[in-house]
Amino acid sequence: MPHTHRVVILGGGFGGLHAAQALRRVPVQATLVDRRNFHLFQPLLYQVATGGLSPANIATPLRNVLKKQRNVRVLLGEATGLDPLGRRVILSDGDLAYDTLVVALGSSHHYFGKDQWSRLAPGLKTIEDAIEIRRRILVAFERAERESDPSSIRTLLTFVVVGGGPTGVELAGALAEIARDTLSHEFRSIDPSHARILLVEGSPRVLAAYPPDLSEKAIRSLRSLGVTVRTETVVTDIQPDAILVRSGEQTERIPAATVLWGAGVQASPFSKVLAEAAGATLDRVGRVQVSPDLSLPTHPEILVIGDMASFAHERDSPLPGVAQVAMQQGAYVARLIHDRLQGRPTSPFRYRDYGMMATIGRHAAVADLFGFRFAGNLAWLAWLCIHLVQLVQFENRLLVFAQWAWSYFTFNRAARLITNLPTADRQDTTKI
Amino acid sequence: MPHTHRVVILGGGFGGLHAAQALRRVPVQATLVDRRNFHLFQPLLYQVATGGLSPANIATPLRNVLKKQRNVRVLLGEATGLDPLGRRVILSDGDLAYDTLVVALGSSHHYFGKDQWSRLAPGLKTIEDAIEIRRRILVAFERAERESDPSSIRTLLTFVVVGGGPTGVELAGALAEIARDTLSHEFRSIDPSHARILLVEGSPRVLAAYPPDLSEKAIRSLRSLGVTVRTETVVTDIQPDAILVRSGEQTERIPAATVLWGAGVQASPFSKVLAEAAGATLDRVGRVQVSPDLSLPTHPEILVIGDMASFAHERDSPLPGVAQVAMQQGAYVARLIHDRLQGRPTSPFRYRDYGMMATIGRHAAVADLFGFRFAGNLAWLAWLCIHLVQLVQFENRLLVFAQWAWSYFTFNRAARLITNLPTADRQDTTKI
Repeated sequence: MPHTHRVVILGGGFGGLHAAQALRRVPVQATLVDRRNFHLFQPLLYQVATGGLSPANIATPLRNVLKKQRNVRVLLGEATGLDPLGRRVILSDGDLAYDTLVVALGSSHHYFGKDQWSRLAPGLKTIEDAIEIRRRILVAFERAERESDPSSIRTLLTFVVVGGGPTGVELAGALAEIARDTLSHEFRSIDPSHARILLVEGSPRVLAAYPPDLSEKAIRSLRSLGVTVRTETVVTDIQPDAILVRSGEQTERIPAATVLWGAGVQASPFSKVLAEAAGATLDRVGRVQVSPDLSLPTHPEILVIGDMASFAHERDSPLPGVAQVAMQQGAYVARLIHDRLQGRPTSPFRYRDYGMMATIGRHAAVADLFGFRFAGNLAWLAWLCIHLVQLVQFENRLLVFAQWAWSYFTFNRAARLITNLPTADRQDTTKI
Repeated sequence: MPHTHRVVILGGGFGGLHAAQALRRVPVQATLVDRRNFHLFQPLLYQVATGGLSPANIATPLRNVLKKQRNVRVLLGEATGLDPLGRRVILSDGDLAYDTLVVALGSSHHYFGKDQWSRLAPGLKTIEDAIEIRRRILVAFERAERESDPSSIRTLLTFVVVGGGPTGVELAGALAEIARDTLSHEFRSIDPSHARILLVEGSPRVLAAYPPDLSEKAIRSLRSLGVTVRTETVVTDIQPDAILVRSGEQTERIPAATVLWGAGVQASPFSKVLAEAAGATLDRVGRVQVSPDLSLPTHPEILVIGDMASFAHERDSPLPGVAQVAMQQGAYVARLIHDRLQGRPTSPFRYRDYGMMATIGRHAAVADLFGFRFAGNLAWLAWLCIHLVQLVQFENRLLVFAQWAWSYFTFNRAARLITNLPTADRQDTTKI
């Protein structure tokens, strides 16, 4: 009797989790491996970074989501290598045999070769990133309250967000809201509403993936919140208390204590393992070029999905690194595995684009859904509903909604905690 | 014209925050200094350590609590020294002049001279402690799931709580609940309900400050949850994967991957500053001996309250280090300052003891309130109500209640996140 087909899924993000869930009725034995014990709803991470939500509001234990699905087990672990001939994934503490491997390890920040910027301008990919950004924002206001020199105060109250994609736009909007509403009356020496928030984008418009009229509306919404938007402006250097930018021929040094990074991303470093061990071809940002069925051309039993995959069979450019793409690809590979087991052919992966949206502060959003483009209050409501529905796998989405409604009506952001202060004497004895 | 009387309050815990709030109608200019930007509701910290609540549920920004009180300002800072003649507190980055100083810096863990134990057995005083304990508990189950050697699995699934005070009892009860209910069906190789939870206490009974019959009831409740309670058992050593204990003549080595510390506490190190600079007398655990009006005998303008104060004028032993004492002392010093400004005498501080309570798991608690002793469901309800009412300064207590009710009925603990993994490359460039 042959053994049950073994599927190993690397990564519990949108792609990996949806693949595991879609395997529910497929006769396989699946193992989901992630470094973290939770799935993170990344689109709301900027709310954690700005104190509106707690990490647990947007993260749910993977074991809990999958506990009733008996053909999946969850392992906390990190993939470090691959033996494609022996069909084994090498983890940092052991290895795992597979018949089909699904790689869904996502992406991380990319500082265009300037890795020294990562400490000066944290990006927003993990819970720890969000807590670090929250800490920097809050500490800047606290230091300003203590400071007496006007130019130092101005530096402390200048916040620069690099990158005009959805993350950058949402962060800048939330920052403006904090300065104008949340912190009002809380300080005695400074007026937080005097904070200066800059959004710096290298290309001619923000939300470059959206239709031009929505980019225009996003800029108008940001400006009405007090955000200074500077397009066609390139970052040339980041220093501990300043950022250097260039627009056209002009270079400018902007003193700023807080710089946040919402610009480049690159595929997980595991793509290099796929290139070296399994002959995968990578693009400029490390994404793996996949066949029309999301498999490696050299190894059809290895499937790559989500932010790590470069799928360029439908359009001129690869599909964008968004949750929708990853989720649809997760569902597709489950069907592909099922079809292969049954000896059925599977048509190539096709992305159904339902649209995209971004929110700007408390009331405004821009949306391009099912071919309709809209902005303002209505777009904001649509954004809220769609995100709440997508939280469907989170048992506590009513609580998240309540938390949100509360913040919305009170202007309060209860999760404004400065935690994880640098403590030199804290060390860990437990290894995982 | 004389300047407004300046009050500096060090510490935003129960004592310091209540002092600041009680100064509302007193004609002073108060400054509240804390290392953290939030007030922490410590009695519920064990719920964060066991994934039931998020940090923001039990912490509230000090600025937010005090924003409408115009005669108080809040500073993020740490007191490192004192100039009692010049009446200045020295902060790590500057100094502050006072006319009256209120010292309310609380207490920290005390490892009876074995400071090397602190890394092996974390205590529960801060948000970071709670997140570290949560991480260790969850990682132990994760590692057990990966392990194949039965004796290693047994070590990983053994949890030892040192100290049978309220913190130890509540932690052990919550741990038992996690193992038996929350994690059931989430693992494939191990059965979390086989976890072994030990509560180790040196004295003859747990909850030693409570009446003996309540201690007995607490032990029975813990046992019914599956907790092994070992009284008259002293810890002789803690090692990375074991704890050594002695009962009577017998020494035993208990292999255990997770050891949590709920035993000794000592006063904030600032008490040594008070001793050296201002002639304060300290007791064995560093508490400051205060006059009947909570002032230093050598410096009546310096008042010490809460866990840092040794107030021994009413009973044989000093008042216990609990929130009730700190809150009443905070209110008292505000009245004392007011009376002094008006030239009125103030009668000595008197503690009104309303009783005490501890909860054990989901249904049981023990309480000794207003002279009534009770246990079980009724005590648990009383515990719940009193804690919710005390969260009164937290605008979001309805949300906390909702979160709680949710966890209660679903057995789920949504905040089960393993965060703050040791990352060697994470460093901080922002100083506070």
